[in-house]
Amino acid sequence: MLLLPPGITNAVTATVRVPMNIAFVKYWGKADERRMLPLNDSVSANLDDLYAESTIILTTDAEADGVIVNEVPMPVGEGTRFAKVFAEFRRMIAGTDHAQAKILVVSTTSFPVKAGLASSAAGFAAIAYGLGKVGELNDAQVARLARLGSGSACRSLYPGFVHWDSSKTGDEDTFVVPVESGIEFASTLFAAVFVIDNKQKTVGSSEGMKRSVQTSNFLKYRVQEVVPHHVNLIKEAVSTADFITFADVTMRESNSLHAVCLDSLPPLSYLNETSFAMINAVHDFNSTPAGVTAAYTFDAGPNAVVLAQLTNAQRLISHFSRLPWAKFVFETKDEQLKEVLNVQEENNHGDLPEIRVILTKVGKGPAVVP
Amino acid sequence: MLLLPPGITNAVTATVRVPMNIAFVKYWGKADERRMLPLNDSVSANLDDLYAESTIILTTDAEADGVIVNEVPMPVGEGTRFAKVFAEFRRMIAGTDHAQAKILVVSTTSFPVKAGLASSAAGFAAIAYGLGKVGELNDAQVARLARLGSGSACRSLYPGFVHWDSSKTGDEDTFVVPVESGIEFASTLFAAVFVIDNKQKTVGSSEGMKRSVQTSNFLKYRVQEVVPHHVNLIKEAVSTADFITFADVTMRESNSLHAVCLDSLPPLSYLNETSFAMINAVHDFNSTPAGVTAAYTFDAGPNAVVLAQLTNAQRLISHFSRLPWAKFVFETKDEQLKEVLNVQEENNHGDLPEIRVILTKVGKGPAVVP
Repeated sequence: MLLLPPGITNAVTATVRVPMNIAFVKYWGKADERRMLPLNDSVSANLDDLYAESTIILTTDAEADGVIVNEVPMPVGEGTRFAKVFAEFRRMIAGTDHAQAKILVVSTTSFPVKAGLASSAAGFAAIAYGLGKVGELNDAQVARLARLGSGSACRSLYPGFVHWDSSKTGDEDTFVVPVESGIEFASTLFAAVFVIDNKQKTVGSSEGMKRSVQTSNFLKYRVQEVVPHHVNLIKEAVSTADFITFADVTMRESNSLHAVCLDSLPPLSYLNETSFAMINAVHDFNSTPAGVTAAYTFDAGPNAVVLAQLTNAQRLISHFSRLPWAKFVFETKDEQLKEVLNVQEENNHGDLPEIRVILTKVGKGPAVVP
Repeated sequence: MLLLPPGITNAVTATVRVPMNIAFVKYWGKADERRMLPLNDSVSANLDDLYAESTIILTTDAEADGVIVNEVPMPVGEGTRFAKVFAEFRRMIAGTDHAQAKILVVSTTSFPVKAGLASSAAGFAAIAYGLGKVGELNDAQVARLARLGSGSACRSLYPGFVHWDSSKTGDEDTFVVPVESGIEFASTLFAAVFVIDNKQKTVGSSEGMKRSVQTSNFLKYRVQEVVPHHVNLIKEAVSTADFITFADVTMRESNSLHAVCLDSLPPLSYLNETSFAMINAVHDFNSTPAGVTAAYTFDAGPNAVVLAQLTNAQRLISHFSRLPWAKFVFETKDEQLKEVLNVQEENNHGDLPEIRVILTKVGKGPAVVP
């Protein structure tokens, strides 16, 4: 049962859980900053166990809007992304009983916010999904609210593989659509999220995208030629459960994104030497007679997300456990993946740097927490 | 006076000195592996004090061809680049007095061979230039011999800025041409070569180029659109002594090359974290009110070459001397640059890693050593 904050008695509430998503065809560059429209399509799936859980409270008992994330109050004043989302929500519910209500959000994430994982995308997806419940919004409105908060948040709203279609720009358009057989294919996969420490201060995605749009020659070509090709290939790979093509496109897409970053001026460098060691480790894993059985992908940060089929989980964990340059510390909340972890061998890894690895299944959709 | 090796009495000899060059518009990708034709044009200048000095001996007193580089005998058998160059040289001088002579080469480089600098390009340029002297070859023949040994070697054969034109593919074509006012502009510049240690084992340029040609989407676009635009811009910048445009294109070209490398599968990563720290240091230097007064460029390795006008030498050295993450140890053979080094301040840099920096003027051509 939800405990309302002190002084709040009359309220409409919803508590929701929404996972963060990882893109296999990458979003990099905005066509419209204000409306948060992307320059190109992207394709993603959710990482089930990396989620934001948010309670949304609409009440006239509060004096002002408020957002608390992992017990820390966030600024919600003009110019913040929260204010932008709340203003649009109020436009959507104008004329209803709740039009005068204040909005309170209490949110927690199941993963470290400062680990360079996309916590704000999951957070805004949860806020949008929760506002949709309390405000009785339709799917297109919820998706648009999520996108306003953090572009890629809109991809967290559906189970399976989802396709964010950049050609759908109207306010009532359905711009996030499920990929055919995306739930079935996702159910055969898992992800290993490698939390890699980043000593260098990096440029945030929004600022980085802007720089690439302004200075990179390759971004234009990527948007016009590379991404449409990759979107077709990966949708076909998902719908036919063709892991090899899925992995090939996923790795090329990650490389393509970081190549565009490097082609910017000043260049954007999100990968560090550990990231490249991870890339090499995956290519080595794929060079065995078993063939291409894993794929890496990196967002705007050094953390690797490695995708593989559940049937290859033990082999992948053994491979990383044997690497001589780090001690990988695996953890998971998933019962099936917990069993797989039993293969971990004891190694003389005492002196090596530790890298935390979160194992999770993929493709779960958002849910209302009862 | 040249001392001939023991047993060699009847010989034709030449001793030459040829500097290594650094490209500002980069060569990456071969159109023809056998003839060493490039996929795209490139533009470079020589680094005066980083040179190979080679003595070429044609003699019938020797039993076999031989090459000694920095006192180490090199393999010259079938399949080596030396054998390829010597065979082509013999075809060129067929029917002359020297057609039956063996070829001996004794070469030294003025810089460390294993520092990841382009020692083989300077070496092959010197061999080709020396063979041209003893074999009385024309310029096109010398350039073709140099290219056969190491593609970019052909760019070392002229003073000032040179343009390697990929459209000139005939055997008698002049494919390396001076850039208008290139000697004048070069005379206003100097280069700082930062010798950065590379812990990672990298893929050699030839193999790396092949991988990019086979797998990178961006390489095609680079060859067709980006490079022609950059060649025009940089030729114009050189001929009008427009340092700002020269620097802008130089940095974009370096980034573009490394972006193509990253867009390859598996990705090629030649820059390390020190390289990126160097890139940031140059952008910081260019962010002062003095404006864009330096440019970095990186070949297929972590070493930065920073170009600047001689009038900014003191300011550049001061800037690097003050950086808190390394102790830069400057050295130069050039009298004018030696004076500039007096500005180096004593710093508490005792515990920092040392980075060796070679200062040199640019644009000197090859020469016969008397």
